Amino acid sequence: MSLVVVGSIAFDAVKTPFGERERMLGGAAVHFSLAASFFTDVRVVGPVGDDFGDEEYAVLEGRGVNTDDIERVDGGETFFWRAHYEYDMATAHTEDTRLGVFGEFAPKLSEESKAADNLFLANIQPDLQREVRKQCTGARLAGLDSMNLWIETARDSLVETISGVDFVFLNDAEIRMLTDQPNLVRAAREVMAMGPSVVVAKQGEYGAALFTEAGYFALPAFPLETVADPTGAGDSFAGGFLGYLASEEGWQEETSLRRAMTYGSVIASFNVEEFGTERVARLTREQIDQRFEDLRRMTALAAAPA
Amino acid sequence: MSLVVVGSIAFDAVKTPFGERERMLGGAAVHFSLAASFFTDVRVVGPVGDDFGDEEYAVLEGRGVNTDDIERVDGGETFFWRAHYEYDMATAHTEDTRLGVFGEFAPKLSEESKAADNLFLANIQPDLQREVRKQCTGARLAGLDSMNLWIETARDSLVETISGVDFVFLNDAEIRMLTDQPNLVRAAREVMAMGPSVVVAKQGEYGAALFTEAGYFALPAFPLETVADPTGAGDSFAGGFLGYLASEEGWQEETSLRRAMTYGSVIASFNVEEFGTERVARLTREQIDQRFEDLRRMTALAAAPA
Repeated sequence: MSLVVVGSIAFDAVKTPFGERERMLGGAAVHFSLAASFFTDVRVVGPVGDDFGDEEYAVLEGRGVNTDDIERVDGGETFFWRAHYEYDMATAHTEDTRLGVFGEFAPKLSEESKAADNLFLANIQPDLQREVRKQCTGARLAGLDSMNLWIETARDSLVETISGVDFVFLNDAEIRMLTDQPNLVRAAREVMAMGPSVVVAKQGEYGAALFTEAGYFALPAFPLETVADPTGAGDSFAGGFLGYLASEEGWQEETSLRRAMTYGSVIASFNVEEFGTERVARLTREQIDQRFEDLRRMTALAAAPA
Repeated sequence: MSLVVVGSIAFDAVKTPFGERERMLGGAAVHFSLAASFFTDVRVVGPVGDDFGDEEYAVLEGRGVNTDDIERVDGGETFFWRAHYEYDMATAHTEDTRLGVFGEFAPKLSEESKAADNLFLANIQPDLQREVRKQCTGARLAGLDSMNLWIETARDSLVETISGVDFVFLNDAEIRMLTDQPNLVRAAREVMAMGPSVVVAKQGEYGAALFTEAGYFALPAFPLETVADPTGAGDSFAGGFLGYLASEEGWQEETSLRRAMTYGSVIASFNVEEFGTERVARLTREQIDQRFEDLRRMTALAAAPA
């Protein structure tokens, strides 16, 4: 089934202990759609400037992502983000953010996007997310990501937006901050009480945890010896997760949601092995399935001795 | 088979957001031996003062722990530690440490302890750990824990001690600090290159990871809504882990080590639900096995769709 993602399309300048790129394709909607493209038909919605060229479109279209709803603003500049990571790689240190065309972004979805079966609201201002959610009346499944900035500056709006989606993807610290509850299990339950049926706590190098009304699932991250650039890991995770779910006609917790967690984790692990979209752009389904099986083997637990 | 643990026996004063205790039984060797006692015969070696009374012995003996090698120093004072935890519970903020009899501790093992099949060197000065290791000539399996203090002040001695054991239990940050390697996978391999065949990375609320020559296993922590007091979690983990292994005649990675990880994790999760030894002192094997199965269910992953 179709999946539409609305969010940032960007140029990133990133420096890590393992290298740097001065200007590469990035943005939440880009990482999400590339990850989801392995499982389902994806449409990406977001604004770019006229500095966004054939090379960038080619990365998305090379993975079959529909770019018809990328809004190209003449004379505008594409969202630009510059950051560096220290050795621990856990935190991006932002040096510069130039919103460019993203500052004026007022999402207007095409009829095709409005009709999408599944929707992901990448991390943008929660009022805008709600605008998009309203336009996608038919989505059987909607998810969102957000960030500390909106929790701090637009909490009420964010809570309202959360009440209109089924899936919330946030990292541990954000879930705690949003609910003012230090215990993650309680915090996740408070987020579910806002409306969503599923809360995914992203935990970086530790993996991710899935909270639903019926239960709990946790998956350690795939162990990596090389993390070149963590940028986009969370969006790749959400893309793999929702992309896989969108590919299933009906789904149920024990199998589908856990598989979705695993596909999300696997694609995120590939994403961080190289800079920006470099690794995922040439990833194959075979490589994904191999790592899925590796991760399954690494986390498999025998029953207690009889 | 028999298991001997050498380390601190203490009185702890602990305050957390969920309560406080002014003086309770604690210490690494205590938490370890209580946890291990569910699986095998345990002897605890360490010094106490004459303030250590029947009530404290009763907790250990109530779980069948052999206390014959507890060295009672007349006129001495038992090791005392005072700390508090903030809401995040990840870090103990030490307010006071009085070594008491522990400051003069020179471990002299009885013949019974020297003959133990399995040995755990809880976190004490690495020269002392090595002294003990030499006395236990017959141990088929030896493990140790350590801490940032010894990595900073006695690194060479610690590395030498590590070279003489099979299992190392450290938290993520300690493994990275010891090897000056920010990537955990590489850092764990560097620790294995020092001698041990197994490195366990303790990851607090995220669980634990197991590194061996042959492979990798990671286990998320059991999700808890209430963490009253994290003190002793790491030692309870090691106790459950090595206690279980000691109970197996022969063991092999895919089943025994992963089960050991799970028993360690399960007992640590019970340990932190109440203060000090309160919960584990009245824990039953049935409760352990139930939570083992719960954790297994919470981490079970179906194969990829065909």
